[in-house]
Amino acid sequence: LESGAMVRGRRMLNGLSPAEIAHLLESSPPRFRDVLWKMVDVDVEGEVIGELGYELQAHYLSQMDAAEVASITEGLADDDLADILQQLPDTITQEVLDAMDHQDRARLEQVMNYPEDVAGGLMSTDTITIRARITLDVVLRYLRRHAEIPKMTDNLIVVNRSDQFIGLLPLRTLLVADPTASVREMMITDIDPIPVDMQDAEVARLFERNDWVSAPVVDESGRLLGRITIDDVVDVIREDADHSFMSMAGLDEDEDTFAPISRAAPRRAIWLGINLVTAFIAAATINLFEDTIAKVVALAVLMPIVSSMGGIAGTQTLTVLVRGIAIGQVGRNNQVWLLNRELIMGALNGLLWAAVVAVAASLWFDDWAIGAIIAAAMVINLITAAFTGAALPLLLTRADIDPALAGGVILTTVTDVVGFASFLGLASVFYA
Amino acid sequence: LESGAMVRGRRMLNGLSPAEIAHLLESSPPRFRDVLWKMVDVDVEGEVIGELGYELQAHYLSQMDAAEVASITEGLADDDLADILQQLPDTITQEVLDAMDHQDRARLEQVMNYPEDVAGGLMSTDTITIRARITLDVVLRYLRRHAEIPKMTDNLIVVNRSDQFIGLLPLRTLLVADPTASVREMMITDIDPIPVDMQDAEVARLFERNDWVSAPVVDESGRLLGRITIDDVVDVIREDADHSFMSMAGLDEDEDTFAPISRAAPRRAIWLGINLVTAFIAAATINLFEDTIAKVVALAVLMPIVSSMGGIAGTQTLTVLVRGIAIGQVGRNNQVWLLNRELIMGALNGLLWAAVVAVAASLWFDDWAIGAIIAAAMVINLITAAFTGAALPLLLTRADIDPALAGGVILTTVTDVVGFASFLGLASVFYA
Repeated sequence: LESGAMVRGRRMLNGLSPAEIAHLLESSPPRFRDVLWKMVDVDVEGEVIGELGYELQAHYLSQMDAAEVASITEGLADDDLADILQQLPDTITQEVLDAMDHQDRARLEQVMNYPEDVAGGLMSTDTITIRARITLDVVLRYLRRHAEIPKMTDNLIVVNRSDQFIGLLPLRTLLVADPTASVREMMITDIDPIPVDMQDAEVARLFERNDWVSAPVVDESGRLLGRITIDDVVDVIREDADHSFMSMAGLDEDEDTFAPISRAAPRRAIWLGINLVTAFIAAATINLFEDTIAKVVALAVLMPIVSSMGGIAGTQTLTVLVRGIAIGQVGRNNQVWLLNRELIMGALNGLLWAAVVAVAASLWFDDWAIGAIIAAAMVINLITAAFTGAALPLLLTRADIDPALAGGVILTTVTDVVGFASFLGLASVFYA
Repeated sequence: LESGAMVRGRRMLNGLSPAEIAHLLESSPPRFRDVLWKMVDVDVEGEVIGELGYELQAHYLSQMDAAEVASITEGLADDDLADILQQLPDTITQEVLDAMDHQDRARLEQVMNYPEDVAGGLMSTDTITIRARITLDVVLRYLRRHAEIPKMTDNLIVVNRSDQFIGLLPLRTLLVADPTASVREMMITDIDPIPVDMQDAEVARLFERNDWVSAPVVDESGRLLGRITIDDVVDVIREDADHSFMSMAGLDEDEDTFAPISRAAPRRAIWLGINLVTAFIAAATINLFEDTIAKVVALAVLMPIVSSMGGIAGTQTLTVLVRGIAIGQVGRNNQVWLLNRELIMGALNGLLWAAVVAVAASLWFDDWAIGAIIAAAMVINLITAAFTGAALPLLLTRADIDPALAGGVILTTVTDVVGFASFLGLASVFYA
């Protein structure tokens, strides 16, 4: 009975597409995941691994030897295979390459020459190229000699004698245009091919803006190297968007949702440790005003309001800037305007909520002075928060530091210290 | 000279693609944006508007009358036009529809019947349908009668006599297969068409998993209504991913980065107001222990460490859960495992950092009692944070409340209150 259920389960599992199997693995706790993985048919293992996130990919690949990797990855697209190989130790990568036939290896080594985050790392080499002088009729007959046209082929790529890109012939043109016309007459020439070293985020932006399904990739001399297809661009878009979200909490965009404690806990611990340092800096600031707090305990009650409002306001500004930078909207020529707007909004919202807090605090502690002090501190801290939230991502980006990851920690340190120092500082002057 | 520069600027601007013009508008402060907008050629205005974010779309459309909207939107794809019309006041929408020819209007009204966030709202009706019994040769000749094949057409859609979906004929098959074969022999039948009421996030998941360029949309009876193309799906993916990121800071995913103060400040103010309420709840908690703080001022110095560490740990858990729910990895059958893992990690990290903080606090204030008290409070708060961070998004999602928007505010209220109460409460027992 047990084995009957297993057989049915195995059949159901392998009836799913590789992407669906990958999703199921990623949605399962580790122990159940390992049971599922053992049930996956060997001949789809490669494709399933290609669909997994990096963390799980690395996990399963680390359990295989070179021969197994070579056998399960047979038939994968170059770019997917290159991604996988780049995660293996060098010796295993070399063994896998040695096990491949000469032509496959040459193509793959070309893709592996490029880092994963540039156009070259996204491209595959399965292009169909044609020459400009032939007629569409000849193109149609040439295509019929193929057993298969690669997936996501919306254009044939027109190259010259030196293999340089000169234009695109869309299949939708080929199917309706006069067959006696030449490729040269019907091809599109007003698109720029993608340079092989273009950053992947920029490639994604081009695809989004131009609604491309695929695009040719060239080297500096204009020679065609391969093409990028929308499915890989969608992954880039998803990862880039996830990156900002996950980084703000000190997490990696490839984070395995169901990572076992042994893998997840140490990473969480490091983030808590970094934040503990900033918490101690805030505590040290409060400690400077110990005597004043001892005299007026209401200060201890109210001080978290000043710091937390600063943190919230600053995080809003930081979030707008981080997103704006990530999607390429914020640059040199508009950042001053943005900084100004944030400062004015910080001041306006500071004044508004300072007034509310002042009245509330005064009534609560029956002391108009404490209301005035907290109001002043709120305005100071909200303007500081706006400035820090806006300037920090611009400075961090210029210094090549990820603003989504480092921004939040630095920002809250600033708003905590300024919040506590301004409130308790003003109070210590007044109540001295 | 001034006008010469204007002419050159206008020519450069209109040499860009509509998507590039839209990006430029979105990357510009309001005053410069309005100058640019006036320079955009009338005949691309519609396409540019179609590429803008909702906030800017609504801004420019509100300045037009029905005749202008009708004239600039001529030639837009149904789904883009429907998105635009759905933002206009009903009377103007009706006027625009009246100004269209009968066939266009009928098609458009069909798309507008569906909410924007389901498959029906994403689809366009520009499909090419064929019948199963004809040969590929007939299909090829039929296509040649078209002046143009719609963009992003990778498949022809095979329907029966009642217009019901029965399969897809990929262009890549049509171009290589034997022309005497019938459509029935060569079509793909193992893909399920998209039900018109499917949620857009689910549609995006199907596209991602199956690497589709386009997919057919059907009603309950299987009748073909239209098709969805990858360019619109990319927008959904981008917006969904942005949604989580922006919501955590109380911002909208359509937020215009360069919104003028008059539009941006009120929204920011509301978020600050909501958070002010939670800050006062935290302050009220501290106030309960006023006497203890007056006796031992070191408590005021150390208490933000307990609350902020709880907030950081809880935010990490919340972020993992919100992302897992958004991409469909977290559901009924694995949420208990996740909750357990987070609780164990919360306890482990609580113990680790409690030990560190205990030693640091004891040495700082030369008082081992305060070290023991803060350690106990840290463990309590980090376990609470883990539980709240994991359970909250699950509960909010079940109650149909957006966990990315409401989760953070509720979480920090809990970690602040529990952090202050446990630390000061234990202290007041000890130092009583």
